[in-house]
Amino acid sequence: MPEFLQLCPAGEALARLLNSLPARPARVERVQVTQALGRVSAARLVSPEALPAFDRSTVDGYALRARDSYGASETLPCYLALVGEAPMGRAPQFALGPGQAALIHTGGMLPEGADAVVMLEYTQSARPGELEVLRAVAPGENVLLCGEDVEPGQEILAAGARLRPAEIGGLLALGVTALDVLARPRAAILSSGDELVAPTARAGAGQVRDINSYTLAALVEEHGGLAQHYGIIPDQADALDAALRRALDECDLAVITAGSSASTRDLTAAAIARMGQPGVLVHGVNVKPGKPTILGVCAGKPVIGLPGNPVSALVIARLFLVPLLRRLGGLADAPPAARLRARLSASVPSQAGRDDYVPVRLLDTDAGLSAEPIFYKSNLIFTLARAAGLAHIPADATGLAAGDWVEVELI
Amino acid sequence: MPEFLQLCPAGEALARLLNSLPARPARVERVQVTQALGRVSAARLVSPEALPAFDRSTVDGYALRARDSYGASETLPCYLALVGEAPMGRAPQFALGPGQAALIHTGGMLPEGADAVVMLEYTQSARPGELEVLRAVAPGENVLLCGEDVEPGQEILAAGARLRPAEIGGLLALGVTALDVLARPRAAILSSGDELVAPTARAGAGQVRDINSYTLAALVEEHGGLAQHYGIIPDQADALDAALRRALDECDLAVITAGSSASTRDLTAAAIARMGQPGVLVHGVNVKPGKPTILGVCAGKPVIGLPGNPVSALVIARLFLVPLLRRLGGLADAPPAARLRARLSASVPSQAGRDDYVPVRLLDTDAGLSAEPIFYKSNLIFTLARAAGLAHIPADATGLAAGDWVEVELI
Repeated sequence: MPEFLQLCPAGEALARLLNSLPARPARVERVQVTQALGRVSAARLVSPEALPAFDRSTVDGYALRARDSYGASETLPCYLALVGEAPMGRAPQFALGPGQAALIHTGGMLPEGADAVVMLEYTQSARPGELEVLRAVAPGENVLLCGEDVEPGQEILAAGARLRPAEIGGLLALGVTALDVLARPRAAILSSGDELVAPTARAGAGQVRDINSYTLAALVEEHGGLAQHYGIIPDQADALDAALRRALDECDLAVITAGSSASTRDLTAAAIARMGQPGVLVHGVNVKPGKPTILGVCAGKPVIGLPGNPVSALVIARLFLVPLLRRLGGLADAPPAARLRARLSASVPSQAGRDDYVPVRLLDTDAGLSAEPIFYKSNLIFTLARAAGLAHIPADATGLAAGDWVEVELI
Repeated sequence: MPEFLQLCPAGEALARLLNSLPARPARVERVQVTQALGRVSAARLVSPEALPAFDRSTVDGYALRARDSYGASETLPCYLALVGEAPMGRAPQFALGPGQAALIHTGGMLPEGADAVVMLEYTQSARPGELEVLRAVAPGENVLLCGEDVEPGQEILAAGARLRPAEIGGLLALGVTALDVLARPRAAILSSGDELVAPTARAGAGQVRDINSYTLAALVEEHGGLAQHYGIIPDQADALDAALRRALDECDLAVITAGSSASTRDLTAAAIARMGQPGVLVHGVNVKPGKPTILGVCAGKPVIGLPGNPVSALVIARLFLVPLLRRLGGLADAPPAARLRARLSASVPSQAGRDDYVPVRLLDTDAGLSAEPIFYKSNLIFTLARAAGLAHIPADATGLAAGDWVEVELI
């Protein structure tokens, strides 16, 4: 297999791919904030107003002028005149003068003149119209000041931020009900292979059902992209060229899962080369499973040639397609991915210089989380279906021993 | 605050809630497998057929009878008669006799009589019609046997399994294109508070926009549920009763975010108590933020009373609402959640016996991942929007020191 003589390390392969992408004006869509979960902001937003918009109490208690409470203690309370109650949802229709206090509830608006709240439990109400304060409070105590969360003009959302429940809440708190987000990247999905039939078809002798189109579409969907199917392409240069040209014309990236025989791999590489400069960037990566991977950029659009075997296709797609979707989807930077640490229950051999991804079951044991490797022929999709995640044997390790710590990415 | 005298530990509170739920016949829906990402299987499925359905080559090479190659080596090759090529996508129209070999491609169907494949690189083709084999192969070598992935009748999906890309692929590989899944749990969302207005409304003096309805709806959606809004309910027992009754009638669970003043908390607890047995199970949890949490079950349906403050509401919803959605959504068991380990960049005080969740930024440093606490008043939604995750200070720690390891849940 001469084309694999120089296998590219995984990290370098990804860098080559991402660094060859041109800067592109992003497509922008306007969406309702309530419908924006998981979307990515197209532009930096600043606050149109202060949050909170008025001084609010953070406790149930009495609004007062802090200085009136100075020196108060259980043995030497101070006495204030009760002048009213701050209503919820409206501005108090009175102001507090020196020596005065008003009942207030959590979230209530402070009356003019008040600068602090003393908690209910540090007060007593001895005589009607009079409040006994048993503890001194400082100015601002138990108060959320106007603008303390956000000031007008302050940044409330960076460009390229993913909208989580907290961001949705923050925007709505300020009355921002719609925003510009980046369009989801459209991923064209092509399956090639003369042996493939659609999953809905009866598979005759020698035929297998195309599943890569659907596992990859699911992965694309999980990671914020839109999958567009281009069907099963026969193993012929003309047919592949035509389908790939249409895919690159209509989508932001293309993924081809090829038959994994050397001849069909060559077909894929040749088709990518014909689609535009720079063409094939990487042909063969030092990863198991997934060595026969092709990465390219054609006239500004990325193309990934994945191995036809369904496990390799999914593992490699996690390594290269997911970061590509993040980049094309406008995510400013990769957050630290959530990974588990577990102890291997059995030794796993590997080659130095090669990144291995081993399907594992995860078991809670008294000694912590245990990762039990599922040894497999890489073509077995149910190996992956039985796994909780993929354990990573890094390139600088020649395998790991039973009891070693390993990082597991949930799948 | 007498109702908080006996704060319930978080773990015990969740157990009380889940253990009080009755077993309920699940609602089942039939969906296309290609549309089933993230759904939960309603029943165990067994395979209708063998996968692969025929013996397949896993390499490019020559199909042969293994015993014909025994003893072959580079210095002493064996010679076989080339009788054809196994086509892709069809059954070979010939059988292999002793001393015969046929060209075969990765994924191709073995001709009758063949029991192994020798890789292309260990062969030479010296004379037309003759193959030189330079290495012996064992029976089954480089072959995926019929049924090696799955046998007919073997379990392919457990009941209560979440469908990931791998499961979708596995089902389609077997021609299973539709399956029964559990209906998504419907979560009723009620906001109460006289100070609240809709995010689309102009907020007057003393009014704040309701955001909890939308942050919680987003969380419900993220975790496989369907959120149904019941709007902003005035702080009146009658209104709350009517809305909650309708919510429990129409949905599988209800979440009420109450104004966080003691009086409105009492309103919520009283309303829950009136909806049916056993009513309120937990009133007050030893968690910061989120102490004034109410958990209940009314006539078989769970109700969660969340603090009105938006940060507490989200933190507590992650602790109680998310496991509830998993349970009601039929997930068989909780997989190990993906959490990060990071070193605290600053000390965080806490009380023994209390679980604290502290919003943190995450920074990649030379010494590994660093979690930088965002100190905050718990009412500030933008504190959470600026955080990458929540660091957990466990109940058995009286705070953690700078440099200590901490678990961070991404939000």
